[in-house]
Amino acid sequence: MNNESLTLYLSHFIDELTKAGVRHVVVSPGSRSTPMAMLMAEHPDLHLYLHIDERSAGFFALGMAKALRKPIALLCTSGTAAANYYPAVIEANYARIPLIVLTADRPHELREVGAPQAIDQNHLYGRHVKWFVDMALPETGDTMLRYARSNAARSVYIASQAPMGPVHLNFPFREPLIPDYEHAYESITQAGQTVQLQNVARELPEEELEGFAHELAQYERGIIVCGALDSTGFSEQVVKLSKALGFPVLADPLSQLRSGPFLSKEIIDSYDSFLRDQTVRRLLAADVIIRFGAMPVSKALTFFLQENRDAEQWVVDGGGLWRDPSYSATRMIACEETSFCRKLSEKVRRNHHSQWIEKWIAVNEKTKEWMRTVNDVEFLDEGKLFYQLHHALPEGATLFVGNSMPIRDVDSFFFKNSKQIEIMANRGANGIDGVVSTAMGASVFRQPLFLVIGDLSLFHDMNGMLAAKLHRLNVNIIIVNNNGGGIFSYLPQAEHPKHFEELFGTPIDLDYSLAAEMYGGDYQKISSWDEFQESVQKAVSHEGLSIIEVPTNREKNVMVHRQLWKNVSREITSMLLGERK
Amino acid sequence: MNNESLTLYLSHFIDELTKAGVRHVVVSPGSRSTPMAMLMAEHPDLHLYLHIDERSAGFFALGMAKALRKPIALLCTSGTAAANYYPAVIEANYARIPLIVLTADRPHELREVGAPQAIDQNHLYGRHVKWFVDMALPETGDTMLRYARSNAARSVYIASQAPMGPVHLNFPFREPLIPDYEHAYESITQAGQTVQLQNVARELPEEELEGFAHELAQYERGIIVCGALDSTGFSEQVVKLSKALGFPVLADPLSQLRSGPFLSKEIIDSYDSFLRDQTVRRLLAADVIIRFGAMPVSKALTFFLQENRDAEQWVVDGGGLWRDPSYSATRMIACEETSFCRKLSEKVRRNHHSQWIEKWIAVNEKTKEWMRTVNDVEFLDEGKLFYQLHHALPEGATLFVGNSMPIRDVDSFFFKNSKQIEIMANRGANGIDGVVSTAMGASVFRQPLFLVIGDLSLFHDMNGMLAAKLHRLNVNIIIVNNNGGGIFSYLPQAEHPKHFEELFGTPIDLDYSLAAEMYGGDYQKISSWDEFQESVQKAVSHEGLSIIEVPTNREKNVMVHRQLWKNVSREITSMLLGERK
Repeated sequence: MNNESLTLYLSHFIDELTKAGVRHVVVSPGSRSTPMAMLMAEHPDLHLYLHIDERSAGFFALGMAKALRKPIALLCTSGTAAANYYPAVIEANYARIPLIVLTADRPHELREVGAPQAIDQNHLYGRHVKWFVDMALPETGDTMLRYARSNAARSVYIASQAPMGPVHLNFPFREPLIPDYEHAYESITQAGQTVQLQNVARELPEEELEGFAHELAQYERGIIVCGALDSTGFSEQVVKLSKALGFPVLADPLSQLRSGPFLSKEIIDSYDSFLRDQTVRRLLAADVIIRFGAMPVSKALTFFLQENRDAEQWVVDGGGLWRDPSYSATRMIACEETSFCRKLSEKVRRNHHSQWIEKWIAVNEKTKEWMRTVNDVEFLDEGKLFYQLHHALPEGATLFVGNSMPIRDVDSFFFKNSKQIEIMANRGANGIDGVVSTAMGASVFRQPLFLVIGDLSLFHDMNGMLAAKLHRLNVNIIIVNNNGGGIFSYLPQAEHPKHFEELFGTPIDLDYSLAAEMYGGDYQKISSWDEFQESVQKAVSHEGLSIIEVPTNREKNVMVHRQLWKNVSREITSMLLGERK
Repeated sequence: MNNESLTLYLSHFIDELTKAGVRHVVVSPGSRSTPMAMLMAEHPDLHLYLHIDERSAGFFALGMAKALRKPIALLCTSGTAAANYYPAVIEANYARIPLIVLTADRPHELREVGAPQAIDQNHLYGRHVKWFVDMALPETGDTMLRYARSNAARSVYIASQAPMGPVHLNFPFREPLIPDYEHAYESITQAGQTVQLQNVARELPEEELEGFAHELAQYERGIIVCGALDSTGFSEQVVKLSKALGFPVLADPLSQLRSGPFLSKEIIDSYDSFLRDQTVRRLLAADVIIRFGAMPVSKALTFFLQENRDAEQWVVDGGGLWRDPSYSATRMIACEETSFCRKLSEKVRRNHHSQWIEKWIAVNEKTKEWMRTVNDVEFLDEGKLFYQLHHALPEGATLFVGNSMPIRDVDSFFFKNSKQIEIMANRGANGIDGVVSTAMGASVFRQPLFLVIGDLSLFHDMNGMLAAKLHRLNVNIIIVNNNGGGIFSYLPQAEHPKHFEELFGTPIDLDYSLAAEMYGGDYQKISSWDEFQESVQKAVSHEGLSIIEVPTNREKNVMVHRQLWKNVSREITSMLLGERK
């Protein structure tokens, strides 16, 4: 019987998926995926999240997996539905987020013969998944049930190994598509033989670490650079290493080093502002640079890395990939980052106190003094928004940051604090797409959550807000509405007015209060900083979707930013040159 | 100078694109694509359509290309932006729509080294484009400018050849990204040497056609099946062939045979209803079947083809692909369809008058008598909506039909008429995604245009409505709002209430008047058929976006449909059996 094989095969697959630790699946409705959807709904250990738009669904799962740091499953029907996952799959690939993408497909005999809703789904996501399997048609028999179980466990195994990432399993199904779901798991949960998964992190031998410790102790002018990184306990250990070596830590907002109990003066959080000046970069030139995590957001830091190509530059990556866009690496180290820092800091022996780190700390403090003057701006400035926010957010909050300008403003204005604020963003491919949905997904496991997002990015994934309504999520969205592409005002095209507004400014003049109403959210448009503070306070304990719109002005923002950076350049240059005299 | 090579290389490329006939490009804002965007905006022969959401942009271009039957260009920046085109690219691939997809990319030295917004864009769309080129970095020199021109012309050449489809050119750009746009085309439009393109259609030798004509004249019980097809003058010629052979033409709504001046009684437009009955299918069994175009929408017809596997089944496809999901083809003919029909009908000699075609005509008329009783339904039934619409739409209107239920209801209730109504739909991959944007794109060249779409499909591409606002398009949207996935009520899962509403019904309870307001559209919710008629009449001459929402009921719809089909089965069976006695 076809239904028996369909039911057995899939219930073994799903059961093993749960045994391997998958607890959540984001499902989009469809016909071909019916048997998997029904059997998933029936499994006692799986939570289903329904989402109509597969693009949003993909990012929603991504957000959940980002927060949970475990694989989340996705299920959709055949055809273009599956293609809508592509942006989220690519982001997951580059951001190293584990996703188990399950797509239903027509059976082999309906492929490439002009059958309806049948597209070639083999390797649909090309090189952007870690693993692809075109699954066999459902069959019973011991080997095929083991095959189903094995592929479930293996998909979790592969997705979870460093570097984590998405995998894609494509399931052809024949009609009839209704499984005997009601009794599917009664016998199976006992009977199925499961595979134990053990992922081992990359570790260096002790003698190599000894060598590194010895080598690093030779350098005075060293710095540590931390980008986005997901390694448990890393913050504590990298601060230890920094203290042991006497090297400052340049901490990207997504390094999670700007917030929390391991707050330390060695953490430099304003480098994006002072490294904009070429003279400053020259005066702070380093002899050795150790990098952890993704490339930081700061373009100034990228210049700094490029200009220090004579320095030793070490790249430590637990995923073993090649992260060196500045072509300055001298050593690639495929080692789990936290253990690298812990072991190395135990081995380092230094007996001189370094002026070097004090200089970085002083420059950092002076820079922040000047950057804090953004708070004196009276109109609704985007930089000030983040400065205010870093004071207003409560202990334990999560700040999800949109791409383009918000992530850059966080870098410039969201300083160190002790409040355990986690900062999240989609920095695998840096898209403005899918941000709303990713934040919605993260909110399932992170409360309270604030998303700060530009108006174009919000528009791009407005459909994502449906999740808040369907799944009663608590999400606070702060829209930085400069009515168009704010980042382009900082780029050279801003000097070419002829095509600027048409191609780059792109005002779309939408009334977001209507979107709020549509998705059952509260809405407030801010006209003063007092209102902003009040709204944020109110939002902290608000249940459901809350939208705070902050209307800003593209031209004024650029002016304020440039003036601040000019002040910082002047002050820090004179400070460093004065020191040398 | 980098800017000189950037400017020259791209202006040669763009200029050749226009010389090859491309007049329209849909642009999404981005930084890396700046030089192409600015130079396109500057070219006197190119019209730019800006779209923020690349997914909608892709479908918008698809809609324009569907209507224009010529390649439309698309431009976006690097990263996930390009991945958002994927659903539209896949639809274009299967629906045979020519698109020139242009993506900006980071230069080679910033690929796969952890640089921001750099993803692997090589073969990003996998097997779903006809051609992919990773273009060389901009360079001057005679050969490289010819290379740029040649690839422009060649992309149009390949996209336009039968079967038409999408091509993808990926352009790496280095900074600085601003071209010397102001004088770019002053000399170039004279100087560039262009390639003349000549696409030749597939034609059969006369003697083969003579053989076919002779062979077909042997059969009495023959039918012609026409699916979606885009071949100029086909309607007239296939009707000629039908008359010459005495074979009825089973005309899918997208064959464009149900409307226009070639209206003929040989055209059978209600087969989806009467072929649902197995006895009827048996009594109407054919000896020869000639198919043109895509597989029709009707599942009943698919059963009919499968059950007539003993018959000669010929598949004629000007694109030379293999369209045979029922595994019943006995002859594959790669020949341009219109010329096949014209030449064959001239060669066919028959001297007996066939009872066969009269029987089909009688069955068709009787079926329609019964189906027309849908008009007696008083509540807002979805079938009646299409029946009413086929009377209400004016001469020359375009009806864009959503997937899932609307296209099936058009098949059942939108009968032959003389009003030159073009029916369009996305039937390459049959997705419910991107339908709003495709209709918006088609509306640039088709007026008046009515889109009839289900609520989930509308939601999926709500962002697509921005085009109406930004580009002042005239589009009338009729939302068939059954608050969820209406089609699932017709499928076997409807009998399994346990998970039905959660997984398939999926009510989302959105107030679409808010979406209408957001995008500057008029909105009316219908509560009676009189209101419906009035609204459609008003919409015909309405400028801008107009939304008519028709609230319907999933359960009632199913009941009405099933009752009608039951009546048809009973009547036609008895008619055919009575005849035999």
